[in-house]
Amino acid sequence: MENTNLQDYSHKRFNILTGEWVLVSPHRAKRPWQGQNEEISAEKRPAYDETCYLCATNTRINGELNPDYKDVFVFTNDFAALQKDSPSFSVNDGLFKAQSETGICKVICFSPDHSKSLAQMEVEDIKKVVSAWQKEYRELGANESINYVQIFENKGAAMGCSNPHPHGQIWSQSSMPNEVYKKEHQQKEYFAKNKSSLLGDYLQQELAAKERIIFQNDDFVVLIPFWAIWPFEAMIAPKKAQKSILELSDAEAKNYAEAISVITQLYDKLFNTSFPYSSGIHQAPTNGEENDHWHWHMSFYPPLLRSATVKKFMVGYEMFGSPQRDITAEVAANRLRELL
Amino acid sequence: MENTNLQDYSHKRFNILTGEWVLVSPHRAKRPWQGQNEEISAEKRPAYDETCYLCATNTRINGELNPDYKDVFVFTNDFAALQKDSPSFSVNDGLFKAQSETGICKVICFSPDHSKSLAQMEVEDIKKVVSAWQKEYRELGANESINYVQIFENKGAAMGCSNPHPHGQIWSQSSMPNEVYKKEHQQKEYFAKNKSSLLGDYLQQELAAKERIIFQNDDFVVLIPFWAIWPFEAMIAPKKAQKSILELSDAEAKNYAEAISVITQLYDKLFNTSFPYSSGIHQAPTNGEENDHWHWHMSFYPPLLRSATVKKFMVGYEMFGSPQRDITAEVAANRLRELL
Ligand SMILES: O=P(O)(O)O[C@H]1O[C@H](CO)[C@@H](O)[C@H](O)[C@H]1O
Ligand SMILES: O=P(O)(O)O[C@H]1O[C@H](CO)[C@@H](O)[C@H](O)[C@H]1O
Repeated sequence: MENTNLQDYSHKRFNILTGEWVLVSPHRAKRPWQGQNEEISAEKRPAYDETCYLCATNTRINGELNPDYKDVFVFTNDFAALQKDSPSFSVNDGLFKAQSETGICKVICFSPDHSKSLAQMEVEDIKKVVSAWQKEYRELGANESINYVQIFENKGAAMGCSNPHPHGQIWSQSSMPNEVYKKEHQQKEYFAKNKSSLLGDYLQQELAAKERIIFQNDDFVVLIPFWAIWPFEAMIAPKKAQKSILELSDAEAKNYAEAISVITQLYDKLFNTSFPYSSGIHQAPTNGEENDHWHWHMSFYPPLLRSATVKKFMVGYEMFGSPQRDITAEVAANRLRELL
Repeated sequence: MENTNLQDYSHKRFNILTGEWVLVSPHRAKRPWQGQNEEISAEKRPAYDETCYLCATNTRINGELNPDYKDVFVFTNDFAALQKDSPSFSVNDGLFKAQSETGICKVICFSPDHSKSLAQMEVEDIKKVVSAWQKEYRELGANESINYVQIFENKGAAMGCSNPHPHGQIWSQSSMPNEVYKKEHQQKEYFAKNKSSLLGDYLQQELAAKERIIFQNDDFVVLIPFWAIWPFEAMIAPKKAQKSILELSDAEAKNYAEAISVITQLYDKLFNTSFPYSSGIHQAPTNGEENDHWHWHMSFYPPLLRSATVKKFMVGYEMFGSPQRDITAEVAANRLRELL
């Protein structure tokens, strides 16, 4: 580590992708914990649960029957936050501003096996999930009125996940959400100025610096970003600038699946628990524009801080000021790397 | 309600203070809950707890003794996220950007009574908390190197609060945090263009529309903002444009204390529980500039959604896309108003 100040004193770090800052307080990692502990369910799950609405052959809440699926199963969310055919309207009444928003929300079951998570799946099976993501991104994005497709997973009760069956979601919609808009802006500006990918150039620098890299294979890097917010936040990014997961060759898709397998396994090892997180893929909008400035990547935002039961709360200061972290990105990378 | 579309179909609403959007899905309020439930501690607390490091006459973790305080007690945080005398440095290494950040963090005990929260305190006693906030904002802000003072409270274990003793925090620092920076920008732009307060003009419109107003007295409005993110998010704002709490007259300070008393009591009534929330005051930076565009306000971000144990999770889509809510601001205002 060249700059030891970053390990000793409070400072802020700049997120090149969002243009925002995170406050880092490395000296504070030692404070005692007297707050709420997460509950961990030690309960071992069966491979099939007859009460689970995501298991194969079971009936969902709306009465539909799940097929006897063998790998990945995708369906339209029964309680979708976005509707496809709602009327178009806008409110422009002084300082009250609103606009209708349409979209399609889907649920994607990663496996018929109720007891598994991505960490316990074979790379070949994770690759099938990647294929399903590609298909959905392509098909949803082809829709005239869908300009952005958000693929994500909420894993664990601590992340508001209402069913432990391995699954993720896809919310696709007519406009660009806040977080995507920030990354659109930052990447576009950089690309216009430098004729190269912002994230690509950043990855070069990280690969040279080494200290935040957790794992790499021929096509992918897994690292703790310099500006990470969550204690063990990680990013998977293709070394080559690609706009979206549609550009993955078959070999690259496999290496991507391997990267997912590695990071999720390291997470589970870290505190010897099924590690909760939200993950998501940020990639080019499907708005029909060039989007050459986009370099897709997947991020993991896990809340655990010190053990299976002590999590980082993003509350008061974080909500009103900026995100804040104690343990530095370098220390976090080190701890995960040691588990390889 | 003039525009019934807003109660029926998904849409996004614009936050005039931050320039960002919230996704609203009113039709989704009915989905079943199968996720994690919060624990509620039904335990009645004593007025004095010998193991509490915030109670009067007790010893704190660093060995310091709390005085036998009778109303409000303020001290410097024993595990401060910001240090006053750390060295000044900056990292400008390609795409790695960081800057040292100094500051002062304080803890403010609202009352010596361990069993109380703001909701159970007399208006006169809340007014003493307001006076302490004024004193801290003035004194910290007078510091050459302090350009912003963030006053906030994390209440309840669900909001990462490590001690139930009624208390809040003040983190003051050299630069403007992300959220403040957004509001600085939006208010400045509006003020330059319209020569009036953005929030002041908005309040006028809300007072005419009535449907999101929960309570008002001569000087203050308590409302659910049009763009609220959290299910029962509320804002307290002075009707008259004021840059900071330093401009409060004695009568206004009392009316502010009353507004705090009213909203915190309504919250506790809503689900018959000591309502968790993070609250914070956004006001003019203490950077020595004019800041006439600032109109201070206090916001409450409570996580509970449907009962004392079911909260809204801001996870996957919210972290990667935009905040999302089901119950509309109008419905939430109605529910709170009914409890008056
Ligand atoms: O300072 P406390 O109460 O120990 O800690 C709490 O509030 C802080 C400021 O919002 C957060 O950074 C912590 O994550 C939270 O647990
Ligand atoms: O759709 P689910 O799994 O029922 O719900 C979960 O994920 C959604 C998308 O991030 C959130 O809006 C909900 O708050 C969360 O509980």
